[in-house]
Amino acid sequence: MPKILIIGDGQLARMLHTEAIELGLSLRVLANSPTESAAAICGDVILGDYHDEATVKAAATGVDVITFEHEHVPAHIIDNLIRDGYNVQPHGDALIHAQDKLVMRRALRNAGAPVPPFAPIDSTDDARAFWEAMDGAVCLKARTGGYDGKGVWFPDSLDELEQLVAEQLDHNTPLMAEKKVHLNRELSALIARSPRGEVRCWDIAETNQDGGVCRWAQAPAANVDAEKIETFATGIAETLDVTGVLAVELFDTDEGIFVNELAMRPHNTGHWTQNGATTSQFEQHLRAVANLPLGSTDMTCAHAVMANILGGDTTWDHDLGERIATVWRSYPDAKIHLYGKQHRPGRKLGHINLTGSDPIAVRADALAAAHYIAHGHWPA
Amino acid sequence: MPKILIIGDGQLARMLHTEAIELGLSLRVLANSPTESAAAICGDVILGDYHDEATVKAAATGVDVITFEHEHVPAHIIDNLIRDGYNVQPHGDALIHAQDKLVMRRALRNAGAPVPPFAPIDSTDDARAFWEAMDGAVCLKARTGGYDGKGVWFPDSLDELEQLVAEQLDHNTPLMAEKKVHLNRELSALIARSPRGEVRCWDIAETNQDGGVCRWAQAPAANVDAEKIETFATGIAETLDVTGVLAVELFDTDEGIFVNELAMRPHNTGHWTQNGATTSQFEQHLRAVANLPLGSTDMTCAHAVMANILGGDTTWDHDLGERIATVWRSYPDAKIHLYGKQHRPGRKLGHINLTGSDPIAVRADALAAAHYIAHGHWPA
Ligand SMILES: Nc1ncnc2c1ncn2[C@@H]1O[C@H](COP(=O)(O)OP(=O)(O)OP(=O)(O)O)[C@@H](O)[C@H]1O
Ligand SMILES: Nc1ncnc2c1ncn2[C@@H]1O[C@H](COP(=O)(O)OP(=O)(O)OP(=O)(O)O)[C@@H](O)[C@H]1O
Ligand SMILES: [Mg+2]
Ligand SMILES: [Mg+2]
Repeated sequence: MPKILIIGDGQLARMLHTEAIELGLSLRVLANSPTESAAAICGDVILGDYHDEATVKAAATGVDVITFEHEHVPAHIIDNLIRDGYNVQPHGDALIHAQDKLVMRRALRNAGAPVPPFAPIDSTDDARAFWEAMDGAVCLKARTGGYDGKGVWFPDSLDELEQLVAEQLDHNTPLMAEKKVHLNRELSALIARSPRGEVRCWDIAETNQDGGVCRWAQAPAANVDAEKIETFATGIAETLDVTGVLAVELFDTDEGIFVNELAMRPHNTGHWTQNGATTSQFEQHLRAVANLPLGSTDMTCAHAVMANILGGDTTWDHDLGERIATVWRSYPDAKIHLYGKQHRPGRKLGHINLTGSDPIAVRADALAAAHYIAHGHWPA
Repeated sequence: MPKILIIGDGQLARMLHTEAIELGLSLRVLANSPTESAAAICGDVILGDYHDEATVKAAATGVDVITFEHEHVPAHIIDNLIRDGYNVQPHGDALIHAQDKLVMRRALRNAGAPVPPFAPIDSTDDARAFWEAMDGAVCLKARTGGYDGKGVWFPDSLDELEQLVAEQLDHNTPLMAEKKVHLNRELSALIARSPRGEVRCWDIAETNQDGGVCRWAQAPAANVDAEKIETFATGIAETLDVTGVLAVELFDTDEGIFVNELAMRPHNTGHWTQNGATTSQFEQHLRAVANLPLGSTDMTCAHAVMANILGGDTTWDHDLGERIATVWRSYPDAKIHLYGKQHRPGRKLGHINLTGSDPIAVRADALAAAHYIAHGHWPA
């Protein structure tokens, strides 16, 4: 069975690992610290910094496939790995579109995908010009390295924008700006593609972000032209030659659907597939990067909801077991996934999956269960 | 979250471990060898012999619950652990009924459960008397330590029986005999019970054994009085005060249903629950022994089949990846579970779960897929 190196030690690597164990695949994790989410539960852990080429190469020795749980490995390291004959999935020419939001938007626009107006921001002059062109509806983004809303700003005034831009450029953060659009809702198209070109799409999910952090995702999204979105997401995967799981984050607006961004790995908005689809995004990512045939993405239930467990103000160290017992007394079918992370307010510590026949009820229940585990009391 | 010690290092411990990781539970494994199925993938492995009381106690230090993946821990060690205040689930007074087939049958008979006629066999004289009483329809069994048909004999003649009995008594194997019944089919009632007395039953499965080794299990079994069997299995769990998963193996005969034996742990005939029920037997066993509320045992599909992957005549070391690719090309939804074990002819190396709407087709497909992975060619 192929040996797969995952670069990254967070919850995505952890959940890839549990699927790998069941499949009998051999998984190695390149981790920053032995106590991180995936490192703590994986037998084959290499400790080291993924910014260091020698470290990555050492970790990659003897594996059949290298893949990622995040976009932050420097592009030149990936390019050098590929040049030296390593099997990297997705490869660097694809991954660059998940690494650099400006490169991504240019490629999407070239491919005919609808994206909000955007511009590179290399100076406060650029910022001012874009602010004026957009009538002050501006979202500033770090081109690289952002996640969970870190690296996304919504300045309320031109002054604030200019100050932000000056500050970030000072820190050598490459920047872009795009039109701040009015979101009716957000959607996520999740697909998988293997090197031989096989593609499978899951049901489109409606997703909810608060402060840039995902709160919940629900499948199937109501009132979407699923076929159109799938065709379109498949087109992106094929144009960019993506392998593994691709998440296409979408904005649903009065002007239609826009693409927000791409992630080339299992994605928070796809966690519902663990308990709501025949093949989870984690199993599928492993199958895809190993160039094995893909599994069915059919839902196994009418409605599936994932609600994130975000750290509350106080730690749960003393009563997590009781919180879980309480939640299971009310929702015995709540599928609790915990990441083994240290508590920190706002941190993603786990998620709840719940399935059912009533889309409204199942979402309310999943959110209540996740809230209880995070806070130790039911939502008001 | 509770820390749970599993005594045993096989596939049942391995599959408990993957559920534990997702739940954020902390699992320790007492293993014979670091390369065994569960030991190879668990971070917290204590190496040692479960026949040694000091070893078991050392492994149990600091854990909240001790549980088992097999019945072979000597009863006096379990009793001493409980006397010394360790939390053992199921406790020794229950477990003894899964450890000693004679004690089990006596308890079942006392509880009014239908069991085939049986007798202790302490001499060749006992054997001869039982042979005559049963008109030669005799099944000889080792009272303790058997599994997968090891320790079960069907002698064709009185001579053969007497020779077997002499041999086994010579090896100090305690023996019993029971009537060899004519099986129309075998069934398995799988239930879980927690210390606080909560009970959940899964759908009854039809099961198939060949040479004492389970080949497949299918849920729901057709034409069964499920309610009656569930009441009856629940009664056994309550009478014996079983905690965790209890499998009640049943014989379906022209004279009605007989109980064959009890297993107090996740059971091969319950593997279908991983991909066919809201809560798998592995998650449920962890919840039950930790005295947490139990999850729904509802099926998530119309029909679920589990087919064992039993080692073929030749090793798969050189082409396992190709075998899996071939199977997934034909059955992309086959859920492949592999145990990471060294190949040995006839050994349980993994299983396939498949779900679907046509019970005949889904069984044929699961068996074909398991056969291909085991042998590298489709069944004739
Ligand atoms: N142009 C925009 N107009 C309005 N809202 C936006 C815009 N861009 C981003 N947002 C909001 O901010 C959230 C985070 O933005 P984005 O996905 O770009 O950031 P991120 O930090 O890369 O997130 P992720 O964790 O998904 O990688 C979006 O989900 C959306 O709710
Ligand atoms: N009295 C009997 N009459 C007919 N067949 C029997 C009888 N007892 C056992 N068998 C057959 O042998 C198989 C194995 O028997 P049993 O379950 O007692 O053995 P085991 O080795 O303990 O199995 P397990 O692996 O389930 O623990 C049964 O599933 C059944 O097919
Ligand atoms: Mg995003
Ligand atoms: Mg048996």
